[in-house]
Amino acid sequence: RRARPVREVLFFPSRPCCIEALLAEAAEPGAPARPCPCPLPSGDTALSRLVRRLLSARRSLDLCIFSFSCPQLARAVQLLHRRGVRVRLVTDAQYMGLHGSQIGRLRHAGIQVRHDQHSGYMHHKFAIVDRRMLITGSLNWTTQAIQSNRENVLVVEDAEYVKAFQDEFERIWEEYNPANYSFF
Amino acid sequence: RRARPVREVLFFPSRPCCIEALLAEAAEPGAPARPCPCPLPSGDTALSRLVRRLLSARRSLDLCIFSFSCPQLARAVQLLHRRGVRVRLVTDAQYMGLHGSQIGRLRHAGIQVRHDQHSGYMHHKFAIVDRRMLITGSLNWTTQAIQSNRENVLVVEDAEYVKAFQDEFERIWEEYNPANYSFF
Repeated sequence: RRARPVREVLFFPSRPCCIEALLAEAAEPGAPARPCPCPLPSGDTALSRLVRRLLSARRSLDLCIFSFSCPQLARAVQLLHRRGVRVRLVTDAQYMGLHGSQIGRLRHAGIQVRHDQHSGYMHHKFAIVDRRMLITGSLNWTTQAIQSNRENVLVVEDAEYVKAFQDEFERIWEEYNPANYSFF
Repeated sequence: RRARPVREVLFFPSRPCCIEALLAEAAEPGAPARPCPCPLPSGDTALSRLVRRLLSARRSLDLCIFSFSCPQLARAVQLLHRRGVRVRLVTDAQYMGLHGSQIGRLRHAGIQVRHDQHSGYMHHKFAIVDRRMLITGSLNWTTQAIQSNRENVLVVEDAEYVKAFQDEFERIWEEYNPANYSFF
């Protein structure tokens, strides 16, 4: 029986929360839980829901993220990569070099990253999980945005919307192929 | 017979286009079309589709827009206000004062505007038309974003998603009520 398609709206700011238990369970399903010594609560928040959706990836994760500096989300993405999920990440050339950006770390971990070569911004903030679930909204993947801004994220398991974004992702992925760079 | 609910995805950058004919038709439905002397084409673009959706408002337009500096979209909003549509606009305190912002002009036209009082950003970019259609995505309402950035906008006529955003709008509208300001 097919589960009911996911339809979720997340609003931020999110209360700060500890996602260690989520990451540990994703890294080693069924392993006995080790309590985290950090003082943050591990309740149900917009951030923990977002992380849960990402960690549900089994085969692929396609990311178009304008600004990516949140270490917690970078750890989730890295974990998926280690678990064998095919991660592709598109980001913005100007923002990837900013202080605190996680792009270098993710590249270093072996994740494929591509970026624009233009003056305009690659301003999307969306993720596609297993070519099946679209996660999109106003939220950049920064701790400031998560904890301080008014933001929204839609989670949509709908073939029509997913296809539109998947097609856009593939267009951008190809356009940003380093083989197509022009050097002046 | 109810029309099929709108489900649309718009990707930007949009080709530049002239929206004078759309605005004229909305201002005076059925009036004979006067050709615009500007050199821009008036074809079907992501921008013209966005403007069309906005101009379909008959009763209310609720806007949460982080950065609003696009004169074309400001004219569309002003036109709706003049036509008797109840427009409410929430924006970000830091960005509303930037050069080119349309917020002053819209306030001057008599449109109700409220803004945050916090250090975090009011980073939403959504519109709700007639409490029925949600328009949301990564796109700030700036000419730069429309013409130069990679952006997405979803148009969703779905009671569940609309309600979530309408509730968020009402929360923010009340929280940003000037009667609640604190002065230090």
